[in-house]
Amino acid sequence: MSKNIIIINGPNLNLLGKREPHIYGSQTFEEYFEELKTLFPELALHYFQSNHEGAIIDKIHEIGYGYTEFAGIVINAGAYTHTSVAIADALSAVKTPAVEVHISNIHTRETFRHHSYLTRVCKGMITGLGLKGYEMAIRYFL
Amino acid sequence: MSKNIIIINGPNLNLLGKREPHIYGSQTFEEYFEELKTLFPELALHYFQSNHEGAIIDKIHEIGYGYTEFAGIVINAGAYTHTSVAIADALSAVKTPAVEVHISNIHTRETFRHHSYLTRVCKGMITGLGLKGYEMAIRYFL
Amino acid sequence: MSKNIIIINGPNLNLLGKREPHIYGSQTFEEYFEELKTLFPELALHYFQSNHEGAIIDKIHEIGYGYTEFAGIVINAGAYTHTSVAIADALSAVKTPAVEVHISNIHTRETFRHHSYLTRVCKGMITGLGLKGYEMAIRYFL
Amino acid sequence: MSKNIIIINGPNLNLLGKREPHIYGSQTFEEYFEELKTLFPELALHYFQSNHEGAIIDKIHEIGYGYTEFAGIVINAGAYTHTSVAIADALSAVKTPAVEVHISNIHTRETFRHHSYLTRVCKGMITGLGLKGYEMAIRYFL
Amino acid sequence: MSKNIIIINGPNLNLLGKREPHIYGSQTFEEYFEELKTLFPELALHYFQSNHEGAIIDKIHEIGYGYTEFAGIVINAGAYTHTSVAIADALSAVKTPAVEVHISNIHTRETFRHHSYLTRVCKGMITGLGLKGYEMAIRYFL
Amino acid sequence: MSKNIIIINGPNLNLLGKREPHIYGSQTFEEYFEELKTLFPELALHYFQSNHEGAIIDKIHEIGYGYTEFAGIVINAGAYTHTSVAIADALSAVKTPAVEVHISNIHTRETFRHHSYLTRVCKGMITGLGLKGYEMAIRYFL
Amino acid sequence: MSKNIIIINGPNLNLLGKREPHIYGSQTFEEYFEELKTLFPELALHYFQSNHEGAIIDKIHEIGYGYTEFAGIVINAGAYTHTSVAIADALSAVKTPAVEVHISNIHTRETFRHHSYLTRVCKGMITGLGLKGYEMAIRYFL
Amino acid sequence: MSKNIIIINGPNLNLLGKREPHIYGSQTFEEYFEELKTLFPELALHYFQSNHEGAIIDKIHEIGYGYTEFAGIVINAGAYTHTSVAIADALSAVKTPAVEVHISNIHTRETFRHHSYLTRVCKGMITGLGLKGYEMAIRYFL
Amino acid sequence: MSKNIIIINGPNLNLLGKREPHIYGSQTFEEYFEELKTLFPELALHYFQSNHEGAIIDKIHEIGYGYTEFAGIVINAGAYTHTSVAIADALSAVKTPAVEVHISNIHTRETFRHHSYLTRVCKGMITGLGLKGYEMAIRYFL
Amino acid sequence: MSKNIIIINGPNLNLLGKREPHIYGSQTFEEYFEELKTLFPELALHYFQSNHEGAIIDKIHEIGYGYTEFAGIVINAGAYTHTSVAIADALSAVKTPAVEVHISNIHTRETFRHHSYLTRVCKGMITGLGLKGYEMAIRYFL
Amino acid sequence: MSKNIIIINGPNLNLLGKREPHIYGSQTFEEYFEELKTLFPELALHYFQSNHEGAIIDKIHEIGYGYTEFAGIVINAGAYTHTSVAIADALSAVKTPAVEVHISNIHTRETFRHHSYLTRVCKGMITGLGLKGYEMAIRYFL
Amino acid sequence: MSKNIIIINGPNLNLLGKREPHIYGSQTFEEYFEELKTLFPELALHYFQSNHEGAIIDKIHEIGYGYTEFAGIVINAGAYTHTSVAIADALSAVKTPAVEVHISNIHTRETFRHHSYLTRVCKGMITGLGLKGYEMAIRYFL
Repeated sequence: MSKNIIIINGPNLNLLGKREPHIYGSQTFEEYFEELKTLFPELALHYFQSNHEGAIIDKIHEIGYGYTEFAGIVINAGAYTHTSVAIADALSAVKTPAVEVHISNIHTRETFRHHSYLTRVCKGMITGLGLKGYEMAIRYFL
Repeated sequence: MSKNIIIINGPNLNLLGKREPHIYGSQTFEEYFEELKTLFPELALHYFQSNHEGAIIDKIHEIGYGYTEFAGIVINAGAYTHTSVAIADALSAVKTPAVEVHISNIHTRETFRHHSYLTRVCKGMITGLGLKGYEMAIRYFL
Repeated sequence: MSKNIIIINGPNLNLLGKREPHIYGSQTFEEYFEELKTLFPELALHYFQSNHEGAIIDKIHEIGYGYTEFAGIVINAGAYTHTSVAIADALSAVKTPAVEVHISNIHTRETFRHHSYLTRVCKGMITGLGLKGYEMAIRYFL
Repeated sequence: MSKNIIIINGPNLNLLGKREPHIYGSQTFEEYFEELKTLFPELALHYFQSNHEGAIIDKIHEIGYGYTEFAGIVINAGAYTHTSVAIADALSAVKTPAVEVHISNIHTRETFRHHSYLTRVCKGMITGLGLKGYEMAIRYFL
Repeated sequence: MSKNIIIINGPNLNLLGKREPHIYGSQTFEEYFEELKTLFPELALHYFQSNHEGAIIDKIHEIGYGYTEFAGIVINAGAYTHTSVAIADALSAVKTPAVEVHISNIHTRETFRHHSYLTRVCKGMITGLGLKGYEMAIRYFL
Repeated sequence: MSKNIIIINGPNLNLLGKREPHIYGSQTFEEYFEELKTLFPELALHYFQSNHEGAIIDKIHEIGYGYTEFAGIVINAGAYTHTSVAIADALSAVKTPAVEVHISNIHTRETFRHHSYLTRVCKGMITGLGLKGYEMAIRYFL
Repeated sequence: MSKNIIIINGPNLNLLGKREPHIYGSQTFEEYFEELKTLFPELALHYFQSNHEGAIIDKIHEIGYGYTEFAGIVINAGAYTHTSVAIADALSAVKTPAVEVHISNIHTRETFRHHSYLTRVCKGMITGLGLKGYEMAIRYFL
Repeated sequence: MSKNIIIINGPNLNLLGKREPHIYGSQTFEEYFEELKTLFPELALHYFQSNHEGAIIDKIHEIGYGYTEFAGIVINAGAYTHTSVAIADALSAVKTPAVEVHISNIHTRETFRHHSYLTRVCKGMITGLGLKGYEMAIRYFL
Repeated sequence: MSKNIIIINGPNLNLLGKREPHIYGSQTFEEYFEELKTLFPELALHYFQSNHEGAIIDKIHEIGYGYTEFAGIVINAGAYTHTSVAIADALSAVKTPAVEVHISNIHTRETFRHHSYLTRVCKGMITGLGLKGYEMAIRYFL
Repeated sequence: MSKNIIIINGPNLNLLGKREPHIYGSQTFEEYFEELKTLFPELALHYFQSNHEGAIIDKIHEIGYGYTEFAGIVINAGAYTHTSVAIADALSAVKTPAVEVHISNIHTRETFRHHSYLTRVCKGMITGLGLKGYEMAIRYFL
Repeated sequence: MSKNIIIINGPNLNLLGKREPHIYGSQTFEEYFEELKTLFPELALHYFQSNHEGAIIDKIHEIGYGYTEFAGIVINAGAYTHTSVAIADALSAVKTPAVEVHISNIHTRETFRHHSYLTRVCKGMITGLGLKGYEMAIRYFL
Repeated sequence: MSKNIIIINGPNLNLLGKREPHIYGSQTFEEYFEELKTLFPELALHYFQSNHEGAIIDKIHEIGYGYTEFAGIVINAGAYTHTSVAIADALSAVKTPAVEVHISNIHTRETFRHHSYLTRVCKGMITGLGLKGYEMAIRYFL
């Protein structure tokens, strides 16, 4: 049976591909996700996005205590990275290991983006390496 | 066709008119909103309130990328003003200009209310001028 | 008629009894809640849990302005204790008195857990005394 | 008899229209003030500008304790906003209500411009809405 | 044999009942202590008060290393809560478990009262629930 | 020949007796100054008030380097106490000793009033003892 | 009957006159106290010194709730000025008004001496004016 | 036609030569200025000193927008260096380049002298090199 | 011709494999580097380690301005990550892009390890993913 | 005549040998002190311990101004190290030189133990070297 | 005999002229140094550059204690300016006076570049005046 | 075989005896080291000094992983004490125990010298006891 790995994207990441296409390109995350599935045919890749902090927590609980067993969580909590103790607590309450990803380099942006509540409860973080960071994070669980 | 302008109110602002009526009066925001519509008959005014951070983000996305084009957002994010990087990110992800409003003077209240994550991504802020602040903010978009 | 008292639990507290049962025991909060009802037969005890900040605010509004009159709120807002100005505002917007409870001693954990936005708007706080803290808080309203 | 309202401008605001006209336009504040007088024919509008902290204090005293009664002060104290406890004290020593105006959004500029000593003693603040902020502030006193 | 439990009160708490009786009532702590003894007839309750930091430390040593075995310490160290590392060290040097009590809510008073050196070495803290807090703390040791 | 002593009052102190007379009384500082002259007939008392930081500096220079020799300066710099390095430098540049006076207790007011740039260059400070503080300060120079 | 006024001196102030007599002079505080008694023959002056924080608190309680009525407390708490919340609480628990005195200018010494817990609960403070400060403080109660 | 360069000195710098001549020498800045004129016969050197923040701002405006064109401003704003946002704004509002000079090394003096509001809007700063710093700054404009 | 990529390791990283082999394994970085070369046969991989800050800077200069052209730098500056502005400046002075790697998760270690001077000048950072982080960083340059 | 040297131990150090003997051993400080006397037969060693800040100050005064002349003070003020300005003042008020000792390494414990008020007034400090630190400190006075 | 003066340049300053020549020009510091020698034919100018902190310290020792006597050190320690206590100690350990130079204005760059450890031990600092700053610093020693 | 113990001195400590001999004496550390060897004839004492951070790290590695086994390191890292995380990491990477020594009392010098990165990884610290501190540290390893 193939390994289950889920990508969780937080607030505003649903706008990728829609927002400023001349800059970010017109590829949506859904389209990129299809590429990832092609790249890792041996994996069962899942994808979840929400702008609701509570919905992300609910999903993490489902991953940790549901019927399907997951080998890893790739999480880009967007702005909740910097403000959500509750998502960090959810991650530390499940046994599934997680890797944190940020598309842009959060340390070269505003000061309030330099700190992540999630890093402490994740295996590690990949920041600033673009969408490629998701691929690397998945590779970590292989 | 008339210009679309939306007022977005954050958590607890649904209690206006219900909470301590001898102080705040028994006028609800919905009633005040009717007055605003009378005051600006040339505009298509919209109103949205939620206690859910995620719902406010969803609404901002809808304004920025939906079928209806909006000329402006008047936002009073209530307590989320001081804690939500995600709402600020949503505002900066849409092209619709926004003006921040606070009924009371946030700078004369507790220290944690002095800072607003939203100001940075809004055209400006009107604070402490009561409900009149909403009217002024709308006027900015005329 | 018996007094209505509600216990509100915040994010991740739904995992009690499921998470690391060899440590926390296999008793869920629902089971403990049954014990509390036995302990206080003269009271109408209610219980609400949510991982959604907005849902907790909605519930507090309902308690303060709904048909049923409540004598007290026992609140353990979990991680939102440290980040939610909005829940604190909701508590201060209703007349029902509240007591804050924490199962573990929040002052011996990470620094960001030492501060509570809720204490300021509650009658008081009970921290570090385990599940027994809920019982004590209920007793305060007798 | 028409209501007296005064606009007080602080240091460097006398350079509007002279400084970088290709950016700020060549309209001086004096010219804009003429427009305001046209806009509010029912009011007796006054204007005062000084680069001297002491002169602004003297003027506020004159407004509060002089022969003419004033209905409101619209104050843009420029750089003194951030450094002058003395002007704030002067405003709190007179009974005439004041509204603070800033042409640019002070919260998106240098950190030392984020704090205003004046806000605490004013009814409220309008920031970032350009010269229109003066018009709005006057409207507050109507 | 009945369990020994001691209440230790710190500086200025000897004035309860004497100080502003129209506010705090004319009941002294000694009188309240008699009530507690009636409430817990099965316990051997002890009471100690001192304005001297050193005397409180001496007493804690005596409890931990004296002939009588104690089941618990209920401590309200008053102002020493916020300044005494030495009392905290004394508590951590004895095996008797302790619960910290504060009559008023220390988190709604001056900033320097928000931090307690004692919480770290106590099982937990009860704050803001009035004299009832002592009763609750005793109940913890049952 | 009688000793020369000067009282220097800073911004807004010219409003004493005019501002809220039902609270502060209707006695102006000028009238109080007459009483002081009666109290110390053996002294040549001088008085200077200005709302201008620069004018206060000019006056201090004149005292230190002018024709008349002064035995002491009694200075209440009002709001400039907390913001003016320049007045402090002026006091340290003259040999005439100075005593700082504050009518109200600056340590029980806003945080930004707790620090005085002047204390460092004065013999000492008298704060919170009302107008009597001026009399005490003069007595210091006897 | 003559007014009772007490001077309370804190730790290390018993060494005045013994410590470095070539600098501080060989006059002990006891000798200076005799001079004060001569200066104010109409008053019943009392004097208390202790190096023990608890003893100072005990004494303040005795002044506030004992048989003798006191018109004022002149307190120089020495080093406890900067560390004792408990002495401040004692002063605020009695109705007798207090004035704080410091022989040297505490604002020109080490940073940790700039803050006084006592000022907040005293009428005011006299600092840096030498032993004369005690005389001035007594005069305040006349 | 010779280049116009102006030296602007801030508060207390008018006392050079008068204050403690055995230390600073008896040469006034006016005399030193004569030497500078001899040293740079090809330049039209100007000199302005004021203890008034507003007057310095007025002068900077005059330099930037007056009839005479200036090649450079050499500014030693004295104590205003550390407190005046307004003078910094004035410098940034004119096109004339400025160089900041300090006679003593401001970084080896009190902490509040380490920060300069002016540096940000000047080409650069020369500090600690004595009166020679003025000569060097002039040389920069050659 | 194959792409040149260099791994630069900072202080103490030469001890990998020697230090506590029961924990870190007995594989040295040199041995791991051989594996990397096998993994990326199409690349010309280089390796440099030094405990000297200056030597690392010299090496970066050589990479940026030497004869061989490099496609990327993978840098783990060890402890210099947190203290060396100079290495960061060196990286920003060369055009070769860099990716920062940390074997352990620097955000779960001591506070002084949370900040990296290098992140600001690198494309991004990979932290906490073990030796695998080097492989991922190399993959970024493909 | 033999040199007098005194060891002063602060709060909770009387529990050495009683507290957790399996860890700290069952040797009391009194027993260790006997060893020290054997080690330094040429010295007159004294020992004082108190849990009372005031008693420690009294003892230091006695050492400095009593009949017996002391060559040195070895002080381990325990928790008062971090909170007592008064003991530091006592040490600086006597001429007897002092050396500060800590059994454990105070810099590897809680943050509030990193700072010592005493170091500033002692010749030096020995920390983390166990009971041997006392012996070393005595040796310093030889 | 001609005066010896040395210019010491710190890390990355060897890249001047190589790095981004279209911006900084293609003149290396060595070439500029030749110009300086022409400008000051009466001086024996020396030049030293290193990326190694230790090498700069060694060189300063050699200047202070070697055979050749130096009249002055002109030091631009580059990034070490902000991090090296050791270079500052070296400068304070030699008697040769030093002047600190920075080509760009360090106060308008990142916050961590605003503080210099060297200023405290140098005569003064010249910042932001380009390469001309070196010439000015040399002139100081004439 | 005799125990090997090494003394490591950091930057600028090579100047002892050369620098200001009228103050520090003309004894170099090398001469003092000879005395130490005489004092401990049973030990094999080693000495290493460098101004290079990297060289000190190299030496620590050599001690920990070289052929000779060392019983202890006595380290005075000079200015690197306050800035070098890398030396601290080196010490924690070797098993040889270390004791930190400072000749002067680092807590009575500039604020940036109060913190040591090394203390955390050393057994303890001896500070302020002069050269005698080295002797004491050696004695710790006996």
